[in-house]
Amino acid sequence: MAVYTEVSDEALDLFLTDYDLGKVQSLKGIAGGVENTNYMLHAGGGQYILTLYEKRVAEADLPFFVGLMDHLSKKGFPCPSPIRKRNGDALGVVEGRPAALVTFLEGMEVKHPTAEHCRMAGEAMATLHIDAADFTIRRENALNPDGWKPLAKACLPRADEIEPGMALLISQELSDLTAIWPDDLPAGVVHADMFKDNVFFLDGSLSGIIDFYFGCNDFLAYDLAIAINAWCFDDDTEFMPELSKALIGGYQSVRKLEPTEVDCLPVLARGAALRFLLTRVNDWLNVPPGALVIPHDPRVFAKRLRFHQRVRTANSYGIA
Amino acid sequence: MAVYTEVSDEALDLFLTDYDLGKVQSLKGIAGGVENTNYMLHAGGGQYILTLYEKRVAEADLPFFVGLMDHLSKKGFPCPSPIRKRNGDALGVVEGRPAALVTFLEGMEVKHPTAEHCRMAGEAMATLHIDAADFTIRRENALNPDGWKPLAKACLPRADEIEPGMALLISQELSDLTAIWPDDLPAGVVHADMFKDNVFFLDGSLSGIIDFYFGCNDFLAYDLAIAINAWCFDDDTEFMPELSKALIGGYQSVRKLEPTEVDCLPVLARGAALRFLLTRVNDWLNVPPGALVIPHDPRVFAKRLRFHQRVRTANSYGIA
Repeated sequence: MAVYTEVSDEALDLFLTDYDLGKVQSLKGIAGGVENTNYMLHAGGGQYILTLYEKRVAEADLPFFVGLMDHLSKKGFPCPSPIRKRNGDALGVVEGRPAALVTFLEGMEVKHPTAEHCRMAGEAMATLHIDAADFTIRRENALNPDGWKPLAKACLPRADEIEPGMALLISQELSDLTAIWPDDLPAGVVHADMFKDNVFFLDGSLSGIIDFYFGCNDFLAYDLAIAINAWCFDDDTEFMPELSKALIGGYQSVRKLEPTEVDCLPVLARGAALRFLLTRVNDWLNVPPGALVIPHDPRVFAKRLRFHQRVRTANSYGIA
Repeated sequence: MAVYTEVSDEALDLFLTDYDLGKVQSLKGIAGGVENTNYMLHAGGGQYILTLYEKRVAEADLPFFVGLMDHLSKKGFPCPSPIRKRNGDALGVVEGRPAALVTFLEGMEVKHPTAEHCRMAGEAMATLHIDAADFTIRRENALNPDGWKPLAKACLPRADEIEPGMALLISQELSDLTAIWPDDLPAGVVHADMFKDNVFFLDGSLSGIIDFYFGCNDFLAYDLAIAINAWCFDDDTEFMPELSKALIGGYQSVRKLEPTEVDCLPVLARGAALRFLLTRVNDWLNVPPGALVIPHDPRVFAKRLRFHQRVRTANSYGIA
């Protein structure tokens, strides 16, 4: 929720000399996005998002992120489409930061999704998995079980400041999941952050999926497990089985889950809950001075994790 | 630079039932504005700014702010135009906050204005003063010399933490200005915050003036004195006489300053510098936990104040 880097009129003009956009009409910093700085740009009658990649994003990963959006949008997937410079490149530099320009997608996130919203989100996720199958750049998931360990280590000494029992919950779960995490599920490119604020709806249809900056190669069903955590609990973090059923149903209407994926779903859902619990606990305990972002409450993911720990089979998620 | 209040799709839909805008297409929080929360709204093919008034803005002042924009835009002044509900009101409620919807103005602020930019800004300011002369709602300037005293009192004990000598500069200047502040200059509605980020240019013309939330009744020439501080110093806070000459020349091409206003300009410029120094020092020393705004560096206004203290007559500002 911040503009980390201010873009002046002069810096913008310089950046845009390499593009064929037409005259700049306006540029507004957007109060969204934790990793990067985003601006809404009007130029030549068109609407774009200008993203400046801040320090938390590795420059080496940019070809994956921008290439993935390019690959998907060319297949008709509703994601931002990178605008290329006259020389064909889709990456430039603004105010000393790597930057990309992508198309603006209309649509609104929904605060309280219905089953139909969840069905469309699941359908779009499966479409993404299929459309991205022939994308050739790879990116490891930095937040896979190996990546959870240093996060846990960093936060365990102070985790109980957030909620008594938090440290035990994390250390026990990390130990359990490390022992039972699957190693042979169907894998491919996953979004890995398909939360409600990254999915837009317009006129009752899904109009856009944004924010591919956690995108990586991992188990496809893990992406679905993240979405179950993100979409299928109400404000009081109570599990909503009809939303989960619709999400998974939408997914399977495009790509049928294999039996091993179904079997592993409760474990993957626990892993997804732990992954977001870990980053949120760390963000919560380490708000830097001058931070422009309010950290998310980690406790909702502790509740979701405890729910998934009680799940015995994927039937609880409403698999048909 | 913040969204203080998140607006859900549901709250927006509820708010818009009173308007004839058409279907919502998108809503993006804007990372600008210190006092209020602003969103860019696309609806029914049109573009709007949705402003939620936060606690720092007194609700009793809203009819002045919204009425002034309405009054000015009806005269063709390039400011946001409030959109009215079907019942004629221009104020509503979103997420428990008073809110207004205004037209979106294209244009970009300039980081390094030329003399021509300054001339256009001066011209627009004088036009505002004339167009607002028959606006009937009044609002006292809360940041007039009486309002500076509590600000000074609050910050003096710690002002030297920012820069040695800051406390003496403030207390001495406050004492001096209180003794010599004019009491009988031409007065009317002033913008009182016409900084570069509140003035947009498009295709070489001034396309918009925004942010009327410091607007009030005060000396007209004090508004010009604020603009001299805001527009006529370079990045190193060195005074740029050719910019000041152009700003005042542009102003006088629309409204000629009276001799008393010209005589008082150096004192008014000192007062304007002190007013922004005081609020910036207080903001700097009192960043609340969880603040979403980076405070401006107060020291630039100490430098500007010291410049104005050395000015003997308004000729130094390039009055023709």
